[in-house]
Amino acid sequence: MFVLGIDPGLSRCGYGCVEHGRKPRAVAAGVIRTDPQTERPIRLAEMQQEVRALIREFEPQVVAIERVLFQHNVSTAMSVGMASGIIMAEAASAGCVVVEYSPNEVKESVAGWGGADKDEVGAMVQTLLDLPKRLSPADAADAVAVALCHLARVPARSSRAMVGRNGGTRS
Amino acid sequence: MFVLGIDPGLSRCGYGCVEHGRKPRAVAAGVIRTDPQTERPIRLAEMQQEVRALIREFEPQVVAIERVLFQHNVSTAMSVGMASGIIMAEAASAGCVVVEYSPNEVKESVAGWGGADKDEVGAMVQTLLDLPKRLSPADAADAVAVALCHLARVPARSSRAMVGRNGGTRS
Repeated sequence: MFVLGIDPGLSRCGYGCVEHGRKPRAVAAGVIRTDPQTERPIRLAEMQQEVRALIREFEPQVVAIERVLFQHNVSTAMSVGMASGIIMAEAASAGCVVVEYSPNEVKESVAGWGGADKDEVGAMVQTLLDLPKRLSPADAADAVAVALCHLARVPARSSRAMVGRNGGTRS
Repeated sequence: MFVLGIDPGLSRCGYGCVEHGRKPRAVAAGVIRTDPQTERPIRLAEMQQEVRALIREFEPQVVAIERVLFQHNVSTAMSVGMASGIIMAEAASAGCVVVEYSPNEVKESVAGWGGADKDEVGAMVQTLLDLPKRLSPADAADAVAVALCHLARVPARSSRAMVGRNGGTRS
């Protein structure tokens, strides 16, 4: 089973694809960027194309997205929410199971406590996936952490049960 | 030129297509609904399909969307923002010009003042488009009002200049 973790954003959207197994394995991680100088609708359309391409490439059974919280900057929160909505729609259209986790749930699951900072999350992602070095940029590591959070919460039996919804049997 | 006005929402998303001319003409108006009992990602995917079908059918040069404001219900505002983001991405992908107007701008433009209620907006939409009766439900009238707001703000010359961006010359 492949889980695509997403740390949503419009300027930088982290993604990390993790394969489920006895030990989780990182398949891909990176960041989709859009130019803040470009009009928002165009940026959202670019984001949609990139996410669609990612889902086509990795065929994840599950897309796990970090929940958007209301920050001090209302306009930023709304842009992140818009990007998040587009990713959810693309994932559901492709037949993926879509799940959301709060930032605290992700940190608690990966680093052991909800107050962990980006540095601690990055270090734990490196350890859990047995990577030679830290994932960079931090948005990519955060996205992998969302995928790991999902895997930690789903027992092997129920994650296999989910596979059927996408018709795939890659795990 | 066709302008597709959108009053965004996830449970009810109003749309209204208005043809630009000496006198604006309503081409279509209605509401896209999704079931609140269904999971949000599935609803967003349904919304995306419906909006894509609308844009294919009417080939608007401009999609005018009412801007999402932060209401008391944060969760509702986020769902409306997600739906709005999906509509913007679909419109930009189809080559439409995408514009946003605040609720106050729409009311001011159509009913003469920003504090107008739904009833006054509905009555003015009926008058401006010379309709035999009020548009129903109110979300459809609100969406038409967004399209009329755009037409009122764009002088004929600049709206013709926009036509080229979608390759269409329906007006």
